[in-house]
Amino acid sequence: MTLPPTHPLVDGRTSDAALVRAYRGSLTPHVPVWFMRQAGRSLPEYRELRAGGDMLAACLDPATASEITLQPVRRHGVDAAIFFSDIVVPVLLAGVDVRIVPGRGPVLGTPVRTARDIADLPELDPADLAPVRDAVERTVDALGATPLVAFAGAPFTLASYLVEGGPSKDQLRARALAVADPDAFAALLAWCARTSGAFLRAQVEAGASAAQVFDSWAGSLSRESWRTQVARHTARTFAALDGLDVPTVHFGTGTGPILDLLPHFGAGVVGVDWRTPLDEAARAVPGWPLQGNVDPAVLGAPWPVIEAHVLDVLERGRAASAHVLNLGHGVPPETDPEVLTRIVRLVHEVTATGASTGEDAR
Amino acid sequence: MTLPPTHPLVDGRTSDAALVRAYRGSLTPHVPVWFMRQAGRSLPEYRELRAGGDMLAACLDPATASEITLQPVRRHGVDAAIFFSDIVVPVLLAGVDVRIVPGRGPVLGTPVRTARDIADLPELDPADLAPVRDAVERTVDALGATPLVAFAGAPFTLASYLVEGGPSKDQLRARALAVADPDAFAALLAWCARTSGAFLRAQVEAGASAAQVFDSWAGSLSRESWRTQVARHTARTFAALDGLDVPTVHFGTGTGPILDLLPHFGAGVVGVDWRTPLDEAARAVPGWPLQGNVDPAVLGAPWPVIEAHVLDVLERGRAASAHVLNLGHGVPPETDPEVLTRIVRLVHEVTATGASTGEDAR
Repeated sequence: MTLPPTHPLVDGRTSDAALVRAYRGSLTPHVPVWFMRQAGRSLPEYRELRAGGDMLAACLDPATASEITLQPVRRHGVDAAIFFSDIVVPVLLAGVDVRIVPGRGPVLGTPVRTARDIADLPELDPADLAPVRDAVERTVDALGATPLVAFAGAPFTLASYLVEGGPSKDQLRARALAVADPDAFAALLAWCARTSGAFLRAQVEAGASAAQVFDSWAGSLSRESWRTQVARHTARTFAALDGLDVPTVHFGTGTGPILDLLPHFGAGVVGVDWRTPLDEAARAVPGWPLQGNVDPAVLGAPWPVIEAHVLDVLERGRAASAHVLNLGHGVPPETDPEVLTRIVRLVHEVTATGASTGEDAR
Repeated sequence: MTLPPTHPLVDGRTSDAALVRAYRGSLTPHVPVWFMRQAGRSLPEYRELRAGGDMLAACLDPATASEITLQPVRRHGVDAAIFFSDIVVPVLLAGVDVRIVPGRGPVLGTPVRTARDIADLPELDPADLAPVRDAVERTVDALGATPLVAFAGAPFTLASYLVEGGPSKDQLRARALAVADPDAFAALLAWCARTSGAFLRAQVEAGASAAQVFDSWAGSLSRESWRTQVARHTARTFAALDGLDVPTVHFGTGTGPILDLLPHFGAGVVGVDWRTPLDEAARAVPGWPLQGNVDPAVLGAPWPVIEAHVLDVLERGRAASAHVLNLGHGVPPETDPEVLTRIVRLVHEVTATGASTGEDAR
């Protein structure tokens, strides 16, 4: 498809934004910053809006999803919005029985465990992504020059929810399927890649300026198993964006042992969790832009501790070709929002350069 | 203390056992094998014995704990028994309000979150470990030449339960305490090391032939944080065995990035989870005996898949100075016990050598 003339990548609204420039490895007027899970649970204005309402209903109501996406941009002055959604949203839209249980996470009506179950998974009709497109369009209109990052689950992480039937500690059932029936496992990952890929593409077509794939559970696999059984499906998720020319980010936890593989499978930017220092990550993927990795466990500490940690992350991030400051995992629900605002201010102040090549896009 | 004349290390009952020899890096008539969590939930005879009774009550009843410890030795012909217990048993015996919630795990009456909470933790009186000693003595008597491995939690893993108040996904609160109040965190780890250390020492004094520390959650820490904040407390747990001259094993999950550090902090044998191939682990700790690492996710696969995987683990294990075959994590509850028996038989058969330097101790 051809992007519409109002698309931010065509009209140039976000092409000079610090985030987009950093994701492309270009110089930026300051280190851009946003926070995974900035939209949602840690914000009082979010809790007020949701007021106990159903999570997936909120994701599928364009006005609500858009408002939740915008809240942290208004409040913190971050360099990007991340689309408020859940990795099972496209699964639900495909027709799978899934809901979000508060305090637990996505739960399947019936887990997907056999080759038969997998063959029976319904295909997602891109037309059914209309509420997602609508929410993104509203959001992008309101954001102006601030880029929106599209959001989707990586195939293994999404597949793990489907096989386990809900969140799990070590994804044992999903890993068991990979061993016991590699063909069925591959078919499931291919379905997940198509479904997440269509979800991601819809967001970018509707105006998102970058796309991040979330792979919370990649770390439960051995490097060998990720490389031989999973990586090509992760690459297919990114390949769903072919022709759209937006920067892509892979983020997973426990991915230290596979960081060097990620650029070979579609990740234009490598997200790093709290375990691997950025200078070490930069040695694993030399020349690659990095995103991360303030330890969420630090956010409850006294400010001088937080400040010292953020400065250390920035210093280590200088080893990368470009650095987008983020957390090493999602914002914990009990985080004081004021702390996040203060981190944004700190990062912008200490990294501001006179060497700006474009306008500060914020 | 001096070991009693009937102690297996004094009377030599287990000193020639394949497990003890391998743990010491000596030649063995075959690769010894046992399974983490072999005692318990996967065995019908265990479920019958427990019949829904309270988990901690079973741990503290010497006849029951001993019987559960012996069941898998009888059934599978493994080369070692692992003492049936829970890492919170010494915490309970110290007087902390903790119970095991079925399907969830250890839950604290009141989580331990502040310096005050930590200072108020009661000290364990070694005399209160009497039911543990009693259970071990009964077990060792029944085991004869088969060695018993003593069991305790590593300080960080134990501390995480105390701070979180129960099982958690990423030990965020425990890691937050480490950052926000390093002195309180150190005091908590020191308490855990004393408590687990006393628990381990009681088991060895009562007749256990080796001691393993379980560190399920070490992998949620960065290498730097483990090295600077946790490692010395792990070493103290092992140091509780000073003078008893038994082999020591460290097992954790997600410990790939810290394997090379473990021998510096008291681990005579390095346990390896399912993520790191043993030949790679052997390069991290050259010359060290390794234990592991059959992927528990394989146990539900068809036998030829299991067999090929076990043979691959054995082959890679040859890179170590000695190898004890085990799983890369605990036996999943739904495992068919027959599969475990078959693995023991396979390992013994394919690794049997004519070059035995002692009697096969099984």
